[in-house]
Amino acid sequence: MLHLTSVASALPGEPVGNDELEERFGLSRQWIETFIGTRTRHFAADLATGKATHTLADLCRQAAERALDRAAVDPGRIGFVVLATATPDALMPTTAAVVADRLGVTGAPVYQLQSGCSGAVQAFALADALIGAGARAGLVMGGDVCVKHLDLTREFRRMPPGELVNYVLFGDGAGAAVVTAEPSGASGASGAVVRLRAAVHRPVLPGHAPGQRVEWYGAADRAGGGSPVTEDYKAIEHRVPELSERICTELLDGLGWSGQQLHYLLPPQLGGRMTARIAAGLRERLGAERAEEVSCVAETGNTGNALVLSQLERLLALMTPGQRALCACVESSKWIAAGFGLEAS
Amino acid sequence: MLHLTSVASALPGEPVGNDELEERFGLSRQWIETFIGTRTRHFAADLATGKATHTLADLCRQAAERALDRAAVDPGRIGFVVLATATPDALMPTTAAVVADRLGVTGAPVYQLQSGCSGAVQAFALADALIGAGARAGLVMGGDVCVKHLDLTREFRRMPPGELVNYVLFGDGAGAAVVTAEPSGASGASGAVVRLRAAVHRPVLPGHAPGQRVEWYGAADRAGGGSPVTEDYKAIEHRVPELSERICTELLDGLGWSGQQLHYLLPPQLGGRMTARIAAGLRERLGAERAEEVSCVAETGNTGNALVLSQLERLLALMTPGQRALCACVESSKWIAAGFGLEAS
Repeated sequence: MLHLTSVASALPGEPVGNDELEERFGLSRQWIETFIGTRTRHFAADLATGKATHTLADLCRQAAERALDRAAVDPGRIGFVVLATATPDALMPTTAAVVADRLGVTGAPVYQLQSGCSGAVQAFALADALIGAGARAGLVMGGDVCVKHLDLTREFRRMPPGELVNYVLFGDGAGAAVVTAEPSGASGASGAVVRLRAAVHRPVLPGHAPGQRVEWYGAADRAGGGSPVTEDYKAIEHRVPELSERICTELLDGLGWSGQQLHYLLPPQLGGRMTARIAAGLRERLGAERAEEVSCVAETGNTGNALVLSQLERLLALMTPGQRALCACVESSKWIAAGFGLEAS
Repeated sequence: MLHLTSVASALPGEPVGNDELEERFGLSRQWIETFIGTRTRHFAADLATGKATHTLADLCRQAAERALDRAAVDPGRIGFVVLATATPDALMPTTAAVVADRLGVTGAPVYQLQSGCSGAVQAFALADALIGAGARAGLVMGGDVCVKHLDLTREFRRMPPGELVNYVLFGDGAGAAVVTAEPSGASGASGAVVRLRAAVHRPVLPGHAPGQRVEWYGAADRAGGGSPVTEDYKAIEHRVPELSERICTELLDGLGWSGQQLHYLLPPQLGGRMTARIAAGLRERLGAERAEEVSCVAETGNTGNALVLSQLERLLALMTPGQRALCACVESSKWIAAGFGLEAS
């Protein structure tokens, strides 16, 4: 059984507030606050020059070192490494292998999952299978750095709102968890030992058009046109609440838990505003009025594969023995609904 | 235990011979034949225009449909999908999710591994863990389409040989395997049922510089310079034979097999010439004189994540009950040594 032994996150540089976005991109601060509800985010680039300040490997290494330190686990004990990301530093070598090398994790299989907002759940599901197959300890990481898609030389006043919203919604960051087959000290509050209970993920809307597309360019199409990041924000807004409810209901049924038994709810992190709305809806429809919302997006922005790990870092500081938490997320490119339960003893 | 129930591959268009490469890129046919030893390869683009003819999703779907057909397994029975690739069609949605959708695989978790030449082994290792965790049947795919890195507008006569070699070494393609927890009819020759025995993969040269780097570009760096695919071919030529031997020895020891008991050897597929040399060296040093080499690279080119699946397709046509095979491959970007054993009954 997978035990969540420690979780840590890493965010690049100082938080960037909405006033700075207003100044740099000509976006209305009020509009961001009213419609998105995200107050700060961190960028792995210097906003003035566009120059990259951190790679994904830098952030993952930082998060992983913190997590290993918190767990008091030596890198030599790590039996596998899994990194989930949509935006690796290069296609090859994988960022996962680079980070494993820098951490001094040797002799362990390394997996890198290409994934969106459900990536951390997919990574935990994979880790769970590897622990089931006999591994004793592993490192689960998730993170994204969108700097390659942040073209700061563009004329923002002419950019359509559907594209401009990407500069407001997203943030860069990484998170890491040390997972172990056996309990290895307290990871939650008041000496709590936290276990993963079920981790599911799967595409749930067969035949539906992608709600999001993120391109990469090779040498042959570097000069070409086309928008690198496109979103059907309407479809996302419409479907994520309903898909979150569906996955939460399925998880509760599978675990034999009721909504009333939930102490914490980790809802999908789209933006501060929408996440609060989804959490309120879920609490009502699951009968989980007691459940406290654990979110990060209003401070971190949408950090993609890092989100769930940032939520877990916050959760562990709160969770005491006997408590239960439910996490749900939705990857909107192919509508992957995902989630897991957590139980502290 | 993972049973290899069927394997199929898909290669785009007609084979492209060395005479065509000589004509198109001004490369000497004799040089290709002497130093690389690859006779044909397939490209997912029209060599005359550079226009893409196939996506990775197209090739994976084709290979998967053939594999499902051969196994007489309905897509509805597939419990998980794993795709290994270095060159997905987009960062999001994942090609794995797009293919699962097109195949009509619903309700199954979908994983996409970012990986190089060891990707198929990583995918089998993951599939093995998922079968160990209770899955009944799954689809394992591997493939690469390098068309985004094939800039056919360049002036080839001025290209340094280290870059030009990429146009000769690589090919596009995909492969797919249906894997099942229980035997599901014969997959080998003479009614043989083929089982996977151990699948290992891990970086083995800590601290060493990458032997290969494949970049991707985002909107912000599309106009920038730099070479998208770089290789330290000397390091690859030097290290791959030694690392293959190391992984083969480890696999044989782990399985309690001797080299004499091997009927087939699936060596790393770098190019026709080097692969033949590696196979001869392995046979000698492992004492596996009886083992028949099963290779595809001279006809397919280096198709990255598809290679092992193409080798397996050839192997299954040969393997009869009681026979054993060993597969080894090396991912040269972070020196991941990988391999597995196969046993037919």
